[in-house]
This record gives sequence, structure tokens and C-alpha cells, in this order.
Amino acid sequence: MTRRVDGLLSCPTPLDHGDIVQLAHGGGGTLTSRLIDRLFVPAFRNPHLDSLGDGAVVTVGDTRLAFTTDSFVVKPVFFPGGDIGSLSVHGTVNDLAMCGAEPLYLSAGLVIEEGFLMSDLERVVAAMAEACGHVGVTLVTGDTKVVDRGKGDGIYVNTSGVGRVREGVSVGPARAAAGDAVLVSGPVGDHGIAVMAAREGIDLETELVSDSAPVVAPVGALLEAVPETHVLRDPTRGGLATALSEVAVASKVGIRLEEAHIPVRDEVRGACELLGFDPLYVACEGRFLAVVPGEQAEEALLAVRSQPGGEGARLIGRVVAEDPGRLVLRTRIGSHRLLERLSGEQLPRIC
Amino acid sequence: MTRRVDGLLSCPTPLDHGDIVQLAHGGGGTLTSRLIDRLFVPAFRNPHLDSLGDGAVVTVGDTRLAFTTDSFVVKPVFFPGGDIGSLSVHGTVNDLAMCGAEPLYLSAGLVIEEGFLMSDLERVVAAMAEACGHVGVTLVTGDTKVVDRGKGDGIYVNTSGVGRVREGVSVGPARAAAGDAVLVSGPVGDHGIAVMAAREGIDLETELVSDSAPVVAPVGALLEAVPETHVLRDPTRGGLATALSEVAVASKVGIRLEEAHIPVRDEVRGACELLGFDPLYVACEGRFLAVVPGEQAEEALLAVRSQPGGEGARLIGRVVAEDPGRLVLRTRIGSHRLLERLSGEQLPRIC
Repeated sequence: MTRRVDGLLSCPTPLDHGDIVQLAHGGGGTLTSRLIDRLFVPAFRNPHLDSLGDGAVVTVGDTRLAFTTDSFVVKPVFFPGGDIGSLSVHGTVNDLAMCGAEPLYLSAGLVIEEGFLMSDLERVVAAMAEACGHVGVTLVTGDTKVVDRGKGDGIYVNTSGVGRVREGVSVGPARAAAGDAVLVSGPVGDHGIAVMAAREGIDLETELVSDSAPVVAPVGALLEAVPETHVLRDPTRGGLATALSEVAVASKVGIRLEEAHIPVRDEVRGACELLGFDPLYVACEGRFLAVVPGEQAEEALLAVRSQPGGEGARLIGRVVAEDPGRLVLRTRIGSHRLLERLSGEQLPRIC
Repeated sequence: MTRRVDGLLSCPTPLDHGDIVQLAHGGGGTLTSRLIDRLFVPAFRNPHLDSLGDGAVVTVGDTRLAFTTDSFVVKPVFFPGGDIGSLSVHGTVNDLAMCGAEPLYLSAGLVIEEGFLMSDLERVVAAMAEACGHVGVTLVTGDTKVVDRGKGDGIYVNTSGVGRVREGVSVGPARAAAGDAVLVSGPVGDHGIAVMAAREGIDLETELVSDSAPVVAPVGALLEAVPETHVLRDPTRGGLATALSEVAVASKVGIRLEEAHIPVRDEVRGACELLGFDPLYVACEGRFLAVVPGEQAEEALLAVRSQPGGEGARLIGRVVAEDPGRLVLRTRIGSHRLLERLSGEQLPRIC
């Protein structure tokens, strides 16, 4: 990990009484996991509530339903390549896709700060509607709350979604097995860097835009070609490294990545070097990771590449029996680096 | 309506470009309706998105599912009789119940302000878990975001829920018919007044607490006894008058209420007189309204009264063919008063 991430490893232990909530508790890394594992999971103890899944799979009648929720607090609300409206749709349909489900219906809960421009609200809503239309998902119910000036930050959007899990598909973070191959659907880190640069007013001297997009089509093609797919994850908060590290732990396997195979745009790599970030920990909002049986790796790759948004897919690693719980990167120069989950908060408020 | 509400009738027309979002856009009255009817419904046009329903009913496989969402921004977070955690569970299970559904699964999306006390977060989560257990609903998926200090207000909670609509039940705001009877499950206005008094530091010299509670059991008993029930609504934002006024409009019927029959606690009536509120416009979070065929009114009343939370149920009015779209109150002194939807914002941030 980079110096910056290492620096945050010294965060105090949370969850002592008298302690306070820190930005890093929402960062998707170890503090978030700790909050989930020590507070939420014990409180709501039930077999569906999984600290790692992108949503829950439940059975209603004869139907396996996926159900998921996400709140979006991204700042700025409008950023290169997207806005909070389209992002809130992509985020939730992607979480449903990560459950192996076909997204069907969405809800929207808006918390708006008094004084927010009505014209901006119209832009956000139009972007949500367009994103829904693009994916073929229907927004069926909503709620709007307005809070006093100074008690919000423009607009926060929650979307929840339900979808139907595909027949014969059963994915989960604990299903990776030795011999599997690891695939990423495209270059990583675009979203986090684009949003951060827009927020901080950093001119990257490039045309870098967020990758915010639905992954429904490439995931659908993958599951059609390889219904035996073991794991699907989207590398949002905490990035690719955190997502795969969690899979290694949950599946009790080792995962080996080849740095040379992981697609990272030059602009993202450059910005990360400049700012002390590690692109493997930077969020994407239009990419996914898949762990598939090794013998079907090429088939999986072709399927993902056949769809818009999956053209840049690459096979980036493999699952091994050795070093269970560990994600190890073989660097370009041939050395090995242990990738742990994000500790602390690398980039706040990017989703 | 009271002076206070009348005073707010002069709000400028919203939704002009350059306009801003006002607190009243989240108040549940005419400005909220206008926002929904002019912005959300046209943007997401689909048969499920109803500006009046408490949730959507969709079909997945062979199952009729109810799906609903609500964001909670109540201030203070802890108030007499409840807190944002239990309220967020009650609000959403009640919305599912209002769809004629048995609540099954909930999601939770937390937006926490940096610096919020971890011990308070633990209290909120414990209250959510207890409320879920009490209703028998399972929280299966969640999300936590943390925003910078000064960009939130402690904690905002979104809950979404799915439930299965009961066999043979079909309720909706447009189904009231002449001859129907109107029932309320208990005294109105407790929640709004209790929260407002706590927030403003007003000593009501009473033990008034919020009515925040699940209505699942009395609604279940009602639908068991009278599956032909036409309308279910919970009188939250905008209160009893707004909810029934919307039913009169949607069903194109007149509704006549008897003031003398509407249960209002003395403490609530007293506080309302003191502060210039009208209890018929003050939110409840543990009451519901039902419109049932007139000949089954007594049966409905007995069923609701048989369950905890429904003991104070009363028949408060009837549906007539005359004056379609109008809700008319016969006052205690025998005069008639037209009750319109809440205009403006009577009590902000009570849910």
C-alpha cells in the first residue's frame, strides 16, 4: 500500500463507548468492516445479512429475489462522466447484478438541503430516469425529505433495488476455489480519481471521466456463458484490492494477481503517483470482478468483452490453495506484495 | 385550517427554473404533491409509480410484492416514545402494511455525520433491531456512508422494505366508494406534537409520547375480517386530513368526518391550541386509516380493536357520492368545514 494508506493504519480502535464516527467508517475499508462485523451483524443476526455481499438473496414465494440498498453522498453532485442521479441507479443495479440477479425495480429516497436549486434537482432526476431507461429497470416508489440549510450538503440519494436471481446461478464471496481465474471487466480507478480531481479542483490535464455505468449487460453475457461463475464483486469503495482481499478471506483461499495484467489508465496511474494513492484501492462504479472456474476463463473473457462496458476486460489472476486469506500481487519487477484491505479512508465521498 | 397553515398558503409557485427547494417540499402537503406530480411522475412514468400510494405493488414470478422506501431525518434523533431507529422500522413496515402486504425484509441505509457518538449509533442500531424483532421482519442488507462534520445532522436513516401482498386483498387510494365507512385506529397527532415539543424544548406538562409503533397486527386482523377493505393509509406527514383529502380526490368521492368521533388526546388538543396547530394535520407514526364497505364497518372496528395498538379505534366518517374530491368535517357545534390538503409545512423534520 502507499504511504498515505499506511499512514492511516494508526487509526484508533473504534466502537469503544465515547468514541465517535469517523469518515473512515464509511470508507469501505477495515473500519467499515469492523462497524459491520461488530455492530450491525450481531444486532440483526440472520443468515441473509452478510458483511461482504453486495446485497441479500431471499426467497419469496417461489422466487429467489435479490434486495440491496445504497446511499449516495458523492461530492460534487455533478462530476465528469456522471452525477449523483445516474450514479445512484448504476450503483444499485450493479449491486443486484453482483448477486447474479436481473435488476427489476428501484426505489429512490432523496434527502435534500433547503435551498438546493430546483433546476439541479430536475437535472438529477432526469439523469436517474435516463439511467433507469438505459438499463431497463423501473423506479416504482420514492420518498423526499427536506432538511434545513446547513444540515445536509445539497442532495443525498438512497436507492434500493429488487431483482430476480437467474436460474441456476449461485454466486457468493465465499465460493472462490483453487484453480479459479480472476477477471476484471475494464480499467480500474477512473471514478475515484475523476471525482476527487473535480472536487479538489485538480487539473489532471486529461479528459479522464468517471467509469460510472451499468454492468448489467456484460454480467448477463458472462452468466449466460459461464453460469458456474463463483464470485461477482464490484470494486467500489476500497477498490479492487479490498474487494479481492475480502474474497480471499471469505473463501479461505489465496489469490495471486499479476500487476502487469491489471488495466489502469495512464492518466489514473499518473494522478495516483502524483497524489500518493494506489490505483488498486481507488473506487470504480462501472467495473466488476468475476471469479470463474479456470477451465472456463477464456470463455468468460470473451463473453464479457462482447458487451459494451466489457471491451477492456482482462484476466488478472488466479485462485490458489496456498496462503488462504491472502491477496498477493506479483509486481511488474517480479517482487511480491501483500495487498490488505483498505485501512482508513483514501478518498471520502466518492459515491 | 389554522392560521399558521393559512399563512403558508402564500408560498411561491415552485418548479420554476432558478427556484429553490423549500422545507415545505418535504412536508407531505401540496408542495410535496406538486413536486411528485410535476417532477417525479413525469420523469419515471410507469404504472406502478403512484403519487399517493405508500408503496408500489409489483409482480415478480407468481408473487405480488409490495416495495417501499422512506428516509428519516427526524430531529431530535431520540424523542419521547421512540428514536430514529425504531421509527425507521415502524415507518417502512407500516407502509408495507398499507399496501395490504405482510412485511418480510428490510434494508437500512445510514448517512452519518462525522463525529456522531458511537454510543448513540449503537443505541439507534439496537432500537432498529428490537423493532424488527417485535414485528418479525428481517433486516437483510445495509449500507453506511459518513459525511464530513457540518454536512449532515447526526444521522439520517433510509429503510426500504419488501413484503408479500395478502391473497385476495387489493387496496388503493382510488378505491373508496359511496357507502363506505372510515375508521381510524387510535388517537391522532401524538407523534408530531411529542417530537416538536422535544425539539423546541416546550414543556407540555404531560407525559405525551410519540405513537410510533407497528400497525401490522391490527391491519392483519382487519384484512382477515374484512378482506374487501378498500383503502388503507397511514396519516404521517400532513396528518389525517391530508391523507383522507387525497383519498377523496383519488376516489372522486366525498368524505364526511364527524369531529366529535375523531380521537385526539387532551394533551395534543391543548398543545395544538397553544401553538396554533390543527391536530388533524399533525403526523402519527403508529396509526392507520381504513375505508371499508359500510355494512362491514362494525366488523372492521372489532377486528382492529382486538389487537394491541388498535384498542382506541373509532369509526369517524363515511364516504358519499356528493361533493367528489372534498373532505368535509362536521364540527362539534354542527357547522361544516372543508379540509384541504396541508399547504406548506406545519411541522418540519418529524419523521
